[in-house]
Amino acid sequence: MSTPWTDPARPADERARALLAELTLEEKAGQLGSYWLRPETDGEEGFAPMQSSFDEGRDTFDALAAHGLGHITRAFGSGTLTPAEGVEHLRTLQKGVLSHSRLGIPAIAHEECLTGFMAAGATTYPAAIAWGASFSPELVREMARRIGRDMRAVGTHLGLSPVLDIVRDYRWGRIEETMGEDPYLTGVLATEYVSGLQESRVVATLKHFAGHAASRAGRNHAPVSIGPREFRDIDLIPFEMAIKLGKVGAVMNSYADVDGVPPASDRWLLTDLLRGDWGFTGTVVSDYWAVNFLESMHGVAADTKDAAIQSLRAGMDVELPETNCFTTLVDAVREGALDEADLDVAVERVLRQKIELGLLDEGFDPTADGEAIDLDPQDNRGLARELAEASIVLLANDGTLPLATPASVAVIGPNAVEARSHLGCYSFTNHVLARLEGGDLSVPVPTIAESLAAEWPDARIAVERGVDVLDPDVSGIEAAVAAARAAETAIVVVGDRAGLFGTGTSGEGCDVVDLSLPGRQADLVEAVLETGTPVVLVLVTGRPYALGAFADRCAAIVQAFMPGEEGGPAVAGVLSGRVNPSGHLPIGIPGHVGGQPGTYLSPRLAWESEGVSNLDPRPLFPFGHGLSYSSFELADLALSAQEVAPDGEVEISARITNTSDRDGTQLVQLYLSDPVASVVRPLKRLVGFARVDLAAGASKRVTFRLHADRTAFTGRDLRRIVEPGEFVVRVGLSSEDAPLTASFTITGDVREAGEDRVLTTPVEVVEV
Amino acid sequence: MSTPWTDPARPADERARALLAELTLEEKAGQLGSYWLRPETDGEEGFAPMQSSFDEGRDTFDALAAHGLGHITRAFGSGTLTPAEGVEHLRTLQKGVLSHSRLGIPAIAHEECLTGFMAAGATTYPAAIAWGASFSPELVREMARRIGRDMRAVGTHLGLSPVLDIVRDYRWGRIEETMGEDPYLTGVLATEYVSGLQESRVVATLKHFAGHAASRAGRNHAPVSIGPREFRDIDLIPFEMAIKLGKVGAVMNSYADVDGVPPASDRWLLTDLLRGDWGFTGTVVSDYWAVNFLESMHGVAADTKDAAIQSLRAGMDVELPETNCFTTLVDAVREGALDEADLDVAVERVLRQKIELGLLDEGFDPTADGEAIDLDPQDNRGLARELAEASIVLLANDGTLPLATPASVAVIGPNAVEARSHLGCYSFTNHVLARLEGGDLSVPVPTIAESLAAEWPDARIAVERGVDVLDPDVSGIEAAVAAARAAETAIVVVGDRAGLFGTGTSGEGCDVVDLSLPGRQADLVEAVLETGTPVVLVLVTGRPYALGAFADRCAAIVQAFMPGEEGGPAVAGVLSGRVNPSGHLPIGIPGHVGGQPGTYLSPRLAWESEGVSNLDPRPLFPFGHGLSYSSFELADLALSAQEVAPDGEVEISARITNTSDRDGTQLVQLYLSDPVASVVRPLKRLVGFARVDLAAGASKRVTFRLHADRTAFTGRDLRRIVEPGEFVVRVGLSSEDAPLTASFTITGDVREAGEDRVLTTPVEVVEV
Repeated sequence: MSTPWTDPARPADERARALLAELTLEEKAGQLGSYWLRPETDGEEGFAPMQSSFDEGRDTFDALAAHGLGHITRAFGSGTLTPAEGVEHLRTLQKGVLSHSRLGIPAIAHEECLTGFMAAGATTYPAAIAWGASFSPELVREMARRIGRDMRAVGTHLGLSPVLDIVRDYRWGRIEETMGEDPYLTGVLATEYVSGLQESRVVATLKHFAGHAASRAGRNHAPVSIGPREFRDIDLIPFEMAIKLGKVGAVMNSYADVDGVPPASDRWLLTDLLRGDWGFTGTVVSDYWAVNFLESMHGVAADTKDAAIQSLRAGMDVELPETNCFTTLVDAVREGALDEADLDVAVERVLRQKIELGLLDEGFDPTADGEAIDLDPQDNRGLARELAEASIVLLANDGTLPLATPASVAVIGPNAVEARSHLGCYSFTNHVLARLEGGDLSVPVPTIAESLAAEWPDARIAVERGVDVLDPDVSGIEAAVAAARAAETAIVVVGDRAGLFGTGTSGEGCDVVDLSLPGRQADLVEAVLETGTPVVLVLVTGRPYALGAFADRCAAIVQAFMPGEEGGPAVAGVLSGRVNPSGHLPIGIPGHVGGQPGTYLSPRLAWESEGVSNLDPRPLFPFGHGLSYSSFELADLALSAQEVAPDGEVEISARITNTSDRDGTQLVQLYLSDPVASVVRPLKRLVGFARVDLAAGASKRVTFRLHADRTAFTGRDLRRIVEPGEFVVRVGLSSEDAPLTASFTITGDVREAGEDRVLTTPVEVVEV
Repeated sequence: MSTPWTDPARPADERARALLAELTLEEKAGQLGSYWLRPETDGEEGFAPMQSSFDEGRDTFDALAAHGLGHITRAFGSGTLTPAEGVEHLRTLQKGVLSHSRLGIPAIAHEECLTGFMAAGATTYPAAIAWGASFSPELVREMARRIGRDMRAVGTHLGLSPVLDIVRDYRWGRIEETMGEDPYLTGVLATEYVSGLQESRVVATLKHFAGHAASRAGRNHAPVSIGPREFRDIDLIPFEMAIKLGKVGAVMNSYADVDGVPPASDRWLLTDLLRGDWGFTGTVVSDYWAVNFLESMHGVAADTKDAAIQSLRAGMDVELPETNCFTTLVDAVREGALDEADLDVAVERVLRQKIELGLLDEGFDPTADGEAIDLDPQDNRGLARELAEASIVLLANDGTLPLATPASVAVIGPNAVEARSHLGCYSFTNHVLARLEGGDLSVPVPTIAESLAAEWPDARIAVERGVDVLDPDVSGIEAAVAAARAAETAIVVVGDRAGLFGTGTSGEGCDVVDLSLPGRQADLVEAVLETGTPVVLVLVTGRPYALGAFADRCAAIVQAFMPGEEGGPAVAGVLSGRVNPSGHLPIGIPGHVGGQPGTYLSPRLAWESEGVSNLDPRPLFPFGHGLSYSSFELADLALSAQEVAPDGEVEISARITNTSDRDGTQLVQLYLSDPVASVVRPLKRLVGFARVDLAAGASKRVTFRLHADRTAFTGRDLRRIVEPGEFVVRVGLSSEDAPLTASFTITGDVREAGEDRVLTTPVEVVEV
């Protein structure tokens, strides 16, 4: 059937409008909903595996899709289906959708894909917090490109990723899903992720818009106390970047209310700012059940119809995971409670997205789309390994590392023998199989103990679990102590197990009251330290834990943030020296277990304690910190100008030299300070970075082009302004180790900042 | 000299304007500053005692007061001077002021007076958090009246009290200075305090305006992340009440920046809201050095002149504790950087305050004012006792209490033998003598051990300190355990020692990272619990501590919030049963040591955990909780109407009966819920309360007159609105034990709330 809306030669807008004009009210409403055939739940145990069983939910489906459907939710069974099963299931669902859609409009098939496509047998990449630690835009983009490639190959179209929440409280369970506590780092990496995924013609979804990570006491979904200035200068920045620079196709709301207003009903946020100020043209999708929550959790809607109307009017386009409240929209229009024009705005966006995805191109057949490819091919695994290696942070080292050819080693701790600890909460395994004893990981994930055995074939290696991550049983500590005593070096691997709502120690709904190591792992570390055998402490975690009680007694400390399916060999490689560590902290590691929330983006009164408080809020290992087996020297800071015009720029450059005899990679970081401003500013903030590969003895010059707009902030009247005056730049190797300092002055008058130049600092690296 | 401004028959405004017109620029600026002859500091040890030594600081004084002076700071040596010394010192200072003031304008002598006038030998009342626990407007007003009476008698004019900060994070050191976590309770008590102090012709000062208690992680002075809605509905409410209802004469700014704007430079806060919206006509005084902080701490001013200009323009009238930045104002006007008219506004306010205080009345001689009265007469002590008794909260009791005539008791713990633990940080003793070994408390403060010995003359009482509050030495635990084993009952008294900047465990700059009992006191409690002897746990603290580890193993738990100089007999009376406990919690007592911030003013997502988070944020003992030796029954809830007009009111009444054979006092509490509102609302909030004395068997009916305006909140557009719809009221004995429930409906349209009716709920109690 040749129609205006199936003609790829016409502009998407025109096609969408043409199609919209053909739809009945019921057909329009259908485009704003979704259907989810959920895997069976097994009480507190999480989801049990499911087989494709479309007929079981047929009645619900027929009701929701009676006049067509916007989305299909997780056709791959939340990771329980193999590619072949998933492709088959998805085709069945699309066939069902088309059977009800008079004009043959397929559904957008969306999936979770944070640590990789959430399907059985798909590559599980490192968790997002590890992307942050890599500081590598290139690797993140390539990962996203591969994830998108695989997703599109099996017939899916939209991924609910990445997470742009800016960490402010280390107690929150979802830190592993974020890229850390810096808006610029997060914005850069998120933009690359979006670009990579969308290059593969899978729409990316920014979440959670906005403020989710700032919930009270780090409790999931708790209210967010934040003022408009902090919200704009911290939380909104990465979203703005990924929208303006990454041209993302979808945005998902945050659950948590911000100063009393739930984002799902906030027209200022979802429309005025997002579309009006930022020019976003994609779709806004609800976090799962967030429209219902307006009634049931937030108490701002009287019933589901009220919730639906409020949310749609605010700018919500699609209700996920299944149509619950938006089922009332037809009646709402018929009753006059809602203008059909309000509905049309959302429907047109959904239709345009389908058109842009090619779903309405003449000849496209969703019931024949997708094929059961290998979702974990060797090149994916290689990339997963590369990203894992780049993300591991060497926190401290007295020279004990690397252990090239140890004679005897005790490998101790639950995360030395738990492959699952390498996988984030949003990997298929942990999201679905969290509590299935002996659940099949569906892709091979070598443990750290196994990987070390492979790394050191000639070493005498004793392996002891010691304690569990969750279980309070400490009977295994004795054997661990004995193993440590008998070894030259003890490698103690502790940390998290990802889970959901308390089934693990990190992940959605796995919040903590303080930052002690989970379970009895601190007892294990103490006991092994007391043996006197040098201890290499390895943390495989989703959040930072307080290390103040141990740090100065460890020979070395390695922080691995849930490194994915190739994490075992990556950690082993760092310990042996095969891999030269290059990760840097995207988040601080605190000394003590309390004192949250905290962030390095602190003004003086949140950072210094002299004459103010008895407590020192600074972390043990600061944002940006990370050691290497090479040594580096930063020198020759140069600024292109001392005075910068109000819309001018300054080039800031420094020379980084590998002063060791070992090839390595160093992260060169640029921090900006604004000593006097019209509002209180952080003492420093990251405004540029470059991951620089340096052969032994080599030098490179790193040049940051900092536009005056990059000094902008939200002023007293909530406009984003550039203020004249002195600015201080520091180039260094961490937020607290930035020895090269200079200043420049912006001339002229206060003015509003430009649109896009405010968002990035181009950087150039050349050999010298 | 008869002049228009010395004529008491003329209106104060007219007198002030007449005097202002006579002043030179230098004389005007002088009125905005102060002078402080500080006690000598002794390094980290705090202040050492001082004698009157005016000549030592004479040069500074002469410079600051060269053309007159606005204030004199702490003439009573921050509590180191006796009444006779203080009166003499103050007269010397006033003489100095007059010697420089061409027109003979005396200074306002201001003092701290939070737990009583901060002079040696003055009555030390319970700390403010104990006023909160008393829920007694009458006692607080009478206390303030006496404080004012004593202050005025010795020649002082303005007290830097009360503190209206609303607690949101129990880790903050200054909780003892607040009245707890509820804005209505705080506003009611603060209004009574203001009225009482000002009845005695001493100006009260509301502090810290505003948001101070919401600082990040409970660290003193740390930035405040808060949105405008929460700020208005929580933090500003008590200030509005004390200004509109209490007609307070002075307001002091908060140090901490709110969303990047320091209050000392916030014209919206200090002028538009305070004076424009609320009609405040008194003076705004700076917290000590807060004007300097605009430069040194907040980085919003380039230098002290910039700081002075910004602050003055924002609405700051007087710089305390001594003129540091405002010394630049004369030059600023001369240079054209500041309009003299801006200065005049502040000067006129200061002059009017002096006129209202009578300082400019013809014939008034400040150099002869004040006399060395007894600052701790018997009636003060009686009132201090009464307030202490009313403030002690019986948290739990398995029937062990009261201990009328015990045969043998072990009295254990540092706060059983430390009289200082009864006194708040802002008592003269702790503020000044904090670290002086054996420092003289200057008024008798019997310890709890001494008071119990007096209470039970026939009992065998063993007293053991066990451990110190701060010192980690645990060698005393063994003797404490032995004493407990040998006794019928063990009374374990643990808690805080007030101090400054880490010299104590509670008080300004004594913040904590978690809510564990300070030092090794938890070890002491554990050890005594393990003896099996029934344990009565007594907490003498400035903040709530986590009791989850002990609570269900104690026979009884008594919470005393720094009960003042008569706290020993008050606690002893509660334990023996001579006093029937009647205090209720003005703040929650948490179960676990982390999880802050927290408040009972929580919406569903901050209070419930089902499907949201693994953590339950609810406290162990909730806001409003408190037991008695009597038993009470609440019944017969009645509402005067089911439908309430938009500007109507509803009478909510219930009958409270003392069902025991013992006279007692019960706090009847009224909570309001708004199930559906346009913004997220707390599940409940206190909107009325009545402390009801009930003889054994007696009944009374408590009637609350709730105006529709009392349902108001700050809506999406930041107007304070009354929304139609259903409201639920609960009458009960704590925020979690409010069994009587009913609802009413407000009719009509959304409208703005009225001005004053929004602030209070009149209550009537009649015998039935």
